[in-house]
Amino acid sequence: MVALRRVGSFFVGGRRITVTGKALRHVQYSHNVVTDYDPNGSYRIEQAYVQYFLPEQPRYRTPMLLVHGGGLTGAQWEDTPDGRPGWLWRFLEAGIAVYVIDNVERGRAGWCAIDSEWPDAPVMRSDEEAARFYRFSFAGHQFPMEAMDGLSGQTVPRWPSTSKLQAGAVRKAIERIGDVIVLGFSQGGGLSFQAADTDRIRIKACIGIEPHGVPTQFQSGIPRIPALMVFGDFIEQDAYWRDMARRGRDALDAWSRAGGRAEVCNLPELGIRGNTHMMMMDRNSDAIATLLVERLDQWRDERAFD
Amino acid sequence: MVALRRVGSFFVGGRRITVTGKALRHVQYSHNVVTDYDPNGSYRIEQAYVQYFLPEQPRYRTPMLLVHGGGLTGAQWEDTPDGRPGWLWRFLEAGIAVYVIDNVERGRAGWCAIDSEWPDAPVMRSDEEAARFYRFSFAGHQFPMEAMDGLSGQTVPRWPSTSKLQAGAVRKAIERIGDVIVLGFSQGGGLSFQAADTDRIRIKACIGIEPHGVPTQFQSGIPRIPALMVFGDFIEQDAYWRDMARRGRDALDAWSRAGGRAEVCNLPELGIRGNTHMMMMDRNSDAIATLLVERLDQWRDERAFD
Repeated sequence: MVALRRVGSFFVGGRRITVTGKALRHVQYSHNVVTDYDPNGSYRIEQAYVQYFLPEQPRYRTPMLLVHGGGLTGAQWEDTPDGRPGWLWRFLEAGIAVYVIDNVERGRAGWCAIDSEWPDAPVMRSDEEAARFYRFSFAGHQFPMEAMDGLSGQTVPRWPSTSKLQAGAVRKAIERIGDVIVLGFSQGGGLSFQAADTDRIRIKACIGIEPHGVPTQFQSGIPRIPALMVFGDFIEQDAYWRDMARRGRDALDAWSRAGGRAEVCNLPELGIRGNTHMMMMDRNSDAIATLLVERLDQWRDERAFD
Repeated sequence: MVALRRVGSFFVGGRRITVTGKALRHVQYSHNVVTDYDPNGSYRIEQAYVQYFLPEQPRYRTPMLLVHGGGLTGAQWEDTPDGRPGWLWRFLEAGIAVYVIDNVERGRAGWCAIDSEWPDAPVMRSDEEAARFYRFSFAGHQFPMEAMDGLSGQTVPRWPSTSKLQAGAVRKAIERIGDVIVLGFSQGGGLSFQAADTDRIRIKACIGIEPHGVPTQFQSGIPRIPALMVFGDFIEQDAYWRDMARRGRDALDAWSRAGGRAEVCNLPELGIRGNTHMMMMDRNSDAIATLLVERLDQWRDERAFD
């Protein structure tokens, strides 16, 4: 049971555009209504959606922001594909106030269908690419393959060109939230560390779950802000992930040089085996959530935040 | 404060496709990674997303399913554009178990970016069309115009061709949920009444908020299932909405003839003035939520559900 003071959402960022001079388009709705659609007018585009869950008696005064991975939405923190409670619910059970972003173009943030605004076409990740990229081919992995359809169903289109917009939206979300612990996965991990470089006043701790696209240098003067990167299993057996982990370690070295506290958590070194890239959905997802909350408690005890 | 037993989500419906024979596409990511994207492979498309909020001590054993309107997502039930708690929170405060759908193509359901699958292009609703369609031009309306940007930000692309897929996804959601009270808005109101015609075993009550696309005949033998349609202000002053309300009344007449119980609630007749199409966002949104819960209590007392 979780006692919540509020559940809600808001939108941040984006810009206004005015479309003019476009022709009407003849549109046939499937319920047999035919109409002339007029695309001209004013729109807000490139905003992000943030859903929040505020416990009645929070474990920490500082809330947590969850930043999803590429081709995914905030749904990735909810029930696992095989129907177990996800990290969102586990963090709420722990009493953590949680904000979940659907970044620009993803999920409830919507995307810009005005054809002159976003120049490129989106990509969709096939199940085959997912299995390869997420390390589902290694013997002993813990992803519930019988529920692959549940992961497939939450995979959404992604534009190659929007990372900068998404980084800006994470910053806008943090401006609105205030002091925050940021936890980002994959692409969202890179965005989180990028945000930590610019929003160090508000970011009190930064966690990257197998992050992509992390900066490899940081402005100096990160006042002992803790950073953690978590890596699963099979990293050393996979050239792509070996490179990614190396870049992660480089980023943490830079973080330390800039005055922060940095730590890598390689799950196999703790005896936690079989984790794929999708560790929040793996069969042992609860064990990793517990490990994360323990680490947050430790940082709280060390007064990184309250 | 709301004590919840679980928050989570699941995906329903959709189909599997296999893409073959397409060329690789050269893709430049904004973080300067260039790659050859391979669109070939297996995908799940046309699923819907359902987020659920289960109170610890539910007011009714029967939960409620909220079905959003066209060009919108489940976010429309959350905070109003001017930042007040929306109907989702008010229903949770009342102790109602709530399921919120993001239907096919909308929000966290994702959409199909494989260009051969969905033949037509999506439309986006401009602020000008929204203001006209939602009746924001009438003097004394209650939509918080100072927060128009908040509504604009949650308006997402919509395909003209997907209504049948969406009707199927609502049915799939209901199959999964079981006995349910359905509340649908605008396009979602039409989908709710369509679902009620086919899922009458599970649907225990059906509420349409200014519904669009309602059936005007129902299979006979709706065993006293209550149905309610709610209409706001300025309906008679607007030719489009006058027609829509007439069609709604025709649908309710057909509902009654098929054995159901049917009622229209014209808010101005209750002295509730100024409501636009977006009554869940209007300044008096709480008053309408209260009215809906009172009606549900009455139906519960009449044993329509427990």
